[in-house]
Amino acid sequence: MRLIHPDRLFPPDPITRGIARALYAEISDLPIFSPHGHCDPAWFALDQPFTDAASLLIQPDHYVLRMLVSQGVTFEALGLAPDGAPKESDPRAIWRVFSQNYHLFRGTPTRLWMDYTFSELFGFDTSLTAETADAYFDRISDCLGKAEYRPRALFDRFEIEMLATTEGALDPLEHHAAIAQSGWNGRVVTTYRPDEVTDPEHENFTANLAQLGQKSGCDVGSWAGYLEAHRIRRAVFRDHGAVATDHGVVLPQTADLSRQECEALYAKVYGGQANPKDAALFRAQMLTEMARLSVEDGMTMQIHPGSVRNHSRNVFARLGRDKGYDIPRQVDFVGGLAPLLNAVGDVPGLRIVVFTLDETTYSRELAPLAGAYPALFVGPAWWFFDSPDGIRRHHEAVIETAGFYNTVGFNDDTRAFPSLPARHDMARRVDCAFLAERVADHRMTEAEAHDLAHALTLDLPRRAYRLAGSPP
Amino acid sequence: MRLIHPDRLFPPDPITRGIARALYAEISDLPIFSPHGHCDPAWFALDQPFTDAASLLIQPDHYVLRMLVSQGVTFEALGLAPDGAPKESDPRAIWRVFSQNYHLFRGTPTRLWMDYTFSELFGFDTSLTAETADAYFDRISDCLGKAEYRPRALFDRFEIEMLATTEGALDPLEHHAAIAQSGWNGRVVTTYRPDEVTDPEHENFTANLAQLGQKSGCDVGSWAGYLEAHRIRRAVFRDHGAVATDHGVVLPQTADLSRQECEALYAKVYGGQANPKDAALFRAQMLTEMARLSVEDGMTMQIHPGSVRNHSRNVFARLGRDKGYDIPRQVDFVGGLAPLLNAVGDVPGLRIVVFTLDETTYSRELAPLAGAYPALFVGPAWWFFDSPDGIRRHHEAVIETAGFYNTVGFNDDTRAFPSLPARHDMARRVDCAFLAERVADHRMTEAEAHDLAHALTLDLPRRAYRLAGSPP
Amino acid sequence: MRLIHPDRLFPPDPITRGIARALYAEISDLPIFSPHGHCDPAWFALDQPFTDAASLLIQPDHYVLRMLVSQGVTFEALGLAPDGAPKESDPRAIWRVFSQNYHLFRGTPTRLWMDYTFSELFGFDTSLTAETADAYFDRISDCLGKAEYRPRALFDRFEIEMLATTEGALDPLEHHAAIAQSGWNGRVVTTYRPDEVTDPEHENFTANLAQLGQKSGCDVGSWAGYLEAHRIRRAVFRDHGAVATDHGVVLPQTADLSRQECEALYAKVYGGQANPKDAALFRAQMLTEMARLSVEDGMTMQIHPGSVRNHSRNVFARLGRDKGYDIPRQVDFVGGLAPLLNAVGDVPGLRIVVFTLDETTYSRELAPLAGAYPALFVGPAWWFFDSPDGIRRHHEAVIETAGFYNTVGFNDDTRAFPSLPARHDMARRVDCAFLAERVADHRMTEAEAHDLAHALTLDLPRRAYRLAGSPP
Repeated sequence: MRLIHPDRLFPPDPITRGIARALYAEISDLPIFSPHGHCDPAWFALDQPFTDAASLLIQPDHYVLRMLVSQGVTFEALGLAPDGAPKESDPRAIWRVFSQNYHLFRGTPTRLWMDYTFSELFGFDTSLTAETADAYFDRISDCLGKAEYRPRALFDRFEIEMLATTEGALDPLEHHAAIAQSGWNGRVVTTYRPDEVTDPEHENFTANLAQLGQKSGCDVGSWAGYLEAHRIRRAVFRDHGAVATDHGVVLPQTADLSRQECEALYAKVYGGQANPKDAALFRAQMLTEMARLSVEDGMTMQIHPGSVRNHSRNVFARLGRDKGYDIPRQVDFVGGLAPLLNAVGDVPGLRIVVFTLDETTYSRELAPLAGAYPALFVGPAWWFFDSPDGIRRHHEAVIETAGFYNTVGFNDDTRAFPSLPARHDMARRVDCAFLAERVADHRMTEAEAHDLAHALTLDLPRRAYRLAGSPP
Repeated sequence: MRLIHPDRLFPPDPITRGIARALYAEISDLPIFSPHGHCDPAWFALDQPFTDAASLLIQPDHYVLRMLVSQGVTFEALGLAPDGAPKESDPRAIWRVFSQNYHLFRGTPTRLWMDYTFSELFGFDTSLTAETADAYFDRISDCLGKAEYRPRALFDRFEIEMLATTEGALDPLEHHAAIAQSGWNGRVVTTYRPDEVTDPEHENFTANLAQLGQKSGCDVGSWAGYLEAHRIRRAVFRDHGAVATDHGVVLPQTADLSRQECEALYAKVYGGQANPKDAALFRAQMLTEMARLSVEDGMTMQIHPGSVRNHSRNVFARLGRDKGYDIPRQVDFVGGLAPLLNAVGDVPGLRIVVFTLDETTYSRELAPLAGAYPALFVGPAWWFFDSPDGIRRHHEAVIETAGFYNTVGFNDDTRAFPSLPARHDMARRVDCAFLAERVADHRMTEAEAHDLAHALTLDLPRRAYRLAGSPP
Repeated sequence: MRLIHPDRLFPPDPITRGIARALYAEISDLPIFSPHGHCDPAWFALDQPFTDAASLLIQPDHYVLRMLVSQGVTFEALGLAPDGAPKESDPRAIWRVFSQNYHLFRGTPTRLWMDYTFSELFGFDTSLTAETADAYFDRISDCLGKAEYRPRALFDRFEIEMLATTEGALDPLEHHAAIAQSGWNGRVVTTYRPDEVTDPEHENFTANLAQLGQKSGCDVGSWAGYLEAHRIRRAVFRDHGAVATDHGVVLPQTADLSRQECEALYAKVYGGQANPKDAALFRAQMLTEMARLSVEDGMTMQIHPGSVRNHSRNVFARLGRDKGYDIPRQVDFVGGLAPLLNAVGDVPGLRIVVFTLDETTYSRELAPLAGAYPALFVGPAWWFFDSPDGIRRHHEAVIETAGFYNTVGFNDDTRAFPSLPARHDMARRVDCAFLAERVADHRMTEAEAHDLAHALTLDLPRRAYRLAGSPP
């Protein structure tokens, strides 16, 4: 008896399931492209073994932390506390807490990813429970000590053809340099994320600007110099493999000011005299400027607005970012993106990918916009919606208006490296189920569905990020 | 031939239907917990017989009234008119109007609840139509005259283990006292709903405050005295069985002001000098205060924002509240609840249940918030969404992010006592269908689904309201 | 082998599919009522042959244009450019571009409509591809030259009992007059769309008002005269068959000012002194006035808010309206429609149909409002949502709250005349699938579903537009 069923996530109707199986059989072994995510490049630069199940699978995964905490488990019991404060330090004890509470994840994608990982990576065939917690912990520890469980070995085992990480504009990129110099042939690339030098309300903005000037050799005291500094840093990132930029903003507001207005606004911002309205306008203008730089240098631009970061001030104050308290909010793409799209939305070859956690905009805003503007693409179901029902709702809301070809296929956005194959497998199965249903009710032929399954898995991501082998 | 099919609401695919049947078989006979609703406690205090089909099933049910009126039936024809105005007074004539228009309810949950009630409570096996109207009316009248159709007998027949009603903070609770003193063993409890003394824009606010002072023996002229009065009234309600409070607000705005700010704001409010902005801020602050009092006394806090009450001023002026013109509107939980959640969202043991009619917030806001903050729970699909598709959409949008265990299972919110078993039966069937689909596509095992069916029906409601037998 | 499958769009489960087939068999041959659309009345007045596949099927269809452009095809390559600018002028070359890119439409309703048209109107049984492009072009050209492909012949062949076009308030309606005088018995009626004389921000508003005065013989210098001019023009439209008015607004804001306020506001508007706030208030007031005129003259009032027109200023400046850049936005019906509904929402016999592209309002706002106010009806899934999943989501969100009878059944809203039967066929199939699922899970009987299939196809549209044969 396997822990995961070979027909999982396929429709129950026998005919439809048969179609889904056939579709899946042709794409299940395709390599993994992961053009957007948050893995740590140090893993692949240093290739140190992972140490234990808790630090590998629990502590870095905010999906896991948040669910446990929401049901009364303390951060301390999970080994997380401010420096010097008491906390659980035994990984086995932390693993037991997780195991005792594993039922909380029923019905969630975390459960599907975990079970896949347990089964396919560590060879388990019984469920994780309080009773099996120690056996699980021991076998995982055991495995992690072996050479074939080191990061680079797993990278190869997972058949990853490309993995993008995300670094701030000021990052030294030393791990990517080390990877390049190491002779290892895994393709791990960086992504340019300049939020810390484009948001005047960032806590270290002034210092960050100074650093940007130093690193780029530009005089960031002027608008032109500031833009040139971005140009130079982007080139450095491209030298470290980057094919894309990434922009996190609360609201998808863009602007397209005149040069004089930009200079005046930047003078305020640089001088530390920007009020909140100025800061918002500057962030808005910088999205459009980043799109213009993408026109110049060909980098794909990724925008993901709509998350209120660190909603719990307590948790943020004690434990910092990425502890599960980033909460989606409503956004307006139609008004917000208008300045940017009017500026560059029809420039041939430009690729802007928008991710959202506000599902209401899928059919009302994003699909209609992406189905018209050549430069705009709808990102995949993302984050909380990287889930069986989430992906289905995304496709149902997007495809009828934008078609498949204004999407970018799947990407995983993970920080949890071992879950990478699980996530891609889930998405491939859900895509095949979606397509199989449309074959079964004769909205498309089986041949077309095969084509589209391949496209969602490989061709569309490659095209969106201009990867080798992608169509022009 | 039965009026209702034994497989109703189960998925058509034979394998999935088989799983749903098996799940349902194990929970269909569980007792009914109804921790949130609007039945009249006088029914159980006085145990008078219900009189006729129209006053039992039509006139008190705003779902029925609104649908008939929306298609041109007049309120007068349904026996509703201002005092002294002409109206139909023969219940049989009113019943005939309903019967002639019964087709209007096709596809609605009202239809399912009515047919269940007709079949299971009154033994009908032919449909209600204009032709069968009189036979229906006669048999129902006949039944209602019998001892076994009196309120307490029905309560026992429905196997209700607990039924909560809802009373204003100033209510004398005499019916609950009478029930307690009667020796009858039915558990009918009250719920503390203080809107009339927390909303400065309530039409009788000043008089209500005075009454609150009298009833509590507190000096409500000061902020501290006003809070103490709530503390005392809540204790009185707990003495009448209350396990929860209930708060209806248009917007889920909360605040967390300093003590000085509260005192100054309350002085304005008490002095009748609050402008609309002050009133809104006071309501916002009071939600947080009520949460703090729940921390003290352990009562579960229920919030249901987002309904614009009495949208038709004509209907309200002529006929008053609850005539079908309460219309949902958009709300923002992410910004709105932030002050309250930052104040008490991580207090162990606190339980705040949020209901909404703005479905867009299920996946974007409520599930992410409830999946992080220990104190927050997502209420069930409610009101218009207490329906087969409504419950399915709720589960699809909530569970993948928040899991099952950050919900509170089902509750019915009904004013229509005879529909209680129908509503619980519908929800149990839809829950089983939802779970069966996830067993059929191998997202969970059948054993887990059995566990979860039981949880949604009994364990989660019990836990949310700290009822006997609930987990800690 | 047919290009389109006889079971297309039916559920895959064999029992459910069987029910859907049986439902469809009884309605598939019903005549087409098309009470809302944008066909050109000149087609039927002049009965000139259509010339070629590109000008018939591509250039006038903004769904087709937008998808091709979104994937990098230029408007020029599709034969569209400003006067004098270079563009493709060979319809065969344009057709080839479309054919090469036909895969872009996979999963979209355009694909279903096109394949239906290819199969049923032109007799194709192989797919459109780059290879078959010329054969397609030739056969279509061939057909269009024949008498039986002229507009009136197609009208008869499509079994259209009534087709409404839409004309501005100042339109001479000469084509409708010509049709009436021609002796041809096809029923092609106009619809009164007064936006150009109710929106003070319309580019030609002042000139339009003057023309309205001339055409109506009223002194539009006064509020009373202006309203009278509308009354007269509406009568003229009714003389040309109109049964309805149509109102496009960005936001569904309404107002109900006093007569004095209206006169003062109109004085500003007429004098060209309205600021943006005045203009918005005037549009809001005019929706209520139009509803009042509908009470007088019995015309059905159609409102479709929420589309930001001409989102791309570039495309609008170069190519004008209706090129695929009308983008939906969020709207608020609950607050917006309150003044209008409080004024006339309970007037017997008044019919107001609201269309929306903001799906979030289906269940939250429109169904609750239409399920209460006698005058309000929910329009069909429309535009981007005139699609298999779009119609299903519409029904799932609307019916449980508003029932079937507060909807108006299907209408097509098309500008693409040859797609008319394809669109009605798609909707009928999706309706039957929706009903079949509810029969299969015993939410309704098969007899009820037959009744409802007929209602959605014929009875409800007829009733909504007071067409011959409709119930009172």
